[in-house]
Amino acid sequence: MAEETVFDFIHMEAVSYVFQGEKVSEDEAVSKLEHMGFATGYRLVERLTRESGRYKDELDIMKYICKDLWVTVYKKQIDNLRTNHQGVYVLHDNRFRLLTHMANGKQYLQYAPRYLAFTCGLVRGCLANLGVTCVVTAEVTHLPACKFQIQVQRG
Amino acid sequence: MAEETVFDFIHMEAVSYVFQGEKVSEDEAVSKLEHMGFATGYRLVERLTRESGRYKDELDIMKYICKDLWVTVYKKQIDNLRTNHQGVYVLHDNRFRLLTHMANGKQYLQYAPRYLAFTCGLVRGCLANLGVTCVVTAEVTHLPACKFQIQVQRG
Repeated sequence: MAEETVFDFIHMEAVSYVFQGEKVSEDEAVSKLEHMGFATGYRLVERLTRESGRYKDELDIMKYICKDLWVTVYKKQIDNLRTNHQGVYVLHDNRFRLLTHMANGKQYLQYAPRYLAFTCGLVRGCLANLGVTCVVTAEVTHLPACKFQIQVQRG
Repeated sequence: MAEETVFDFIHMEAVSYVFQGEKVSEDEAVSKLEHMGFATGYRLVERLTRESGRYKDELDIMKYICKDLWVTVYKKQIDNLRTNHQGVYVLHDNRFRLLTHMANGKQYLQYAPRYLAFTCGLVRGCLANLGVTCVVTAEVTHLPACKFQIQVQRG
């Protein structure tokens, strides 16, 4: 049951370490975590997809993120995937692991972006490695639920 | 096969992030990683040992570290545990996960301590939570083999 907690705890430490830096603004810290996530995702997906085949299309890649990748990292699948079929994908996670450690109160909601930044980067890094350039943002709906929005950059 | 790689990669990112800091000396950076490991280990062992019983004695706790904890975090057991029965324990890992990513050349050996610091802290944090105060140091014998020395602080 506890294999996943090593990742959870080192992630928490990384967040707290990045935000401890005295001369780092909130934006810079979020961006550093996003960058750590990107590098992690980029390398991780290389390892994970080594033996699997090619993906049919963009939607197929998104399904891979929602299922295989999410299970590997967060031990559950994304609950809901929506798309406008024009390059925007919204992934709903009704119980996002890295938010479950947070106390459930409005005063803590302001800190939620810190716990989403790494994952935004992770998704962006995975997709970059699979040939999809995109911008990934996240939003907390109500703790510990959140959604990740992927905006594919074309051309 | 790949569940463990998430931890490996976020650990690599944490190492590289901590050492990127411009005004941070090598010693400070190692100490920061050790601290991150301590916090991770302290909380992790709390989660892991919630359902298990008490440990008979100090040696029993060390065996727990070498077996259960090591398997959870590094997917293998410690290869060899030695003690002088006076509070010194030496744990040999013949193929330490976090060193397997490193290129095998003498010129890289100098960077090995960066990849051991988190784990020294992890072991110290676990033991602290289990009531054993100690100092943990590590040494690379030849990549990717290394040994961790635990010196229990009495009284």
